[in-house]
Amino acid sequence: MFCKIISGEIPSAKVYEDEYSFAFLDINPINPGHTLLVPKRHFANLYETSDETLKELTPIIKKLAIAVKKAVSADGINIGMNNDPAAGQLVFHAHFHIIPRHLEDGFRHWRGKRAYKDGEMSHVAEKIKASL
Amino acid sequence: MFCKIISGEIPSAKVYEDEYSFAFLDINPINPGHTLLVPKRHFANLYETSDETLKELTPIIKKLAIAVKKAVSADGINIGMNNDPAAGQLVFHAHFHIIPRHLEDGFRHWRGKRAYKDGEMSHVAEKIKASL
Repeated sequence: MFCKIISGEIPSAKVYEDEYSFAFLDINPINPGHTLLVPKRHFANLYETSDETLKELTPIIKKLAIAVKKAVSADGINIGMNNDPAAGQLVFHAHFHIIPRHLEDGFRHWRGKRAYKDGEMSHVAEKIKASL
Repeated sequence: MFCKIISGEIPSAKVYEDEYSFAFLDINPINPGHTLLVPKRHFANLYETSDETLKELTPIIKKLAIAVKKAVSADGINIGMNNDPAAGQLVFHAHFHIIPRHLEDGFRHWRGKRAYKDGEMSHVAEKIKASL
């Protein structure tokens, strides 16, 4: 679907475009100004996105964060990227969310966080190091 | 605080370190394996982080996402970055969250999203373009 947005086959409220990336407003925003940045090359998710593309995109994420904050007079910006359905990914073309936030906009996250049990934390750290 | 973690003055469950960045487990995880990646240079947030640092860090975010997913047998990974208190930023040293997710782990986000009114979307897109 995002490939068709990039090509213009599906219309979008475009806010930015360059050789590597394309940004447009999410039609189902958290708050107005919620922007999606996608690489023009098709990658399904972060795991598959080339390092070269990631390096091209991140300064644009910053640029968009600053512009969105200013444009909608936001008090803060969340950057998000969801990978796999379990993490809320709905479109399988890698994309970054730039989400403007306002003081007391009422969104609350991650209720019911899961604490570490005794000894679990160092065990998990070792497993991650072994997986790198 | 993160500067003291990087220097080792405050102990942490470190999972990765290179010339530019340092990653360790969040002591208050969403799910076990929740990792924070911070640039060694101190920047308060995304807006202030140098493009050079962003380019160094993003391939590491990917590397960590793949490793965390494997290490804790996660079904997905959320990447997050909170900028300003209104967006949930608690520590004012720029940091990326790598959050493992499991199918039906019960987290639900962004209830009460705010839809665009007629004509608002194109207006907001123009304001962002003008702010870039």
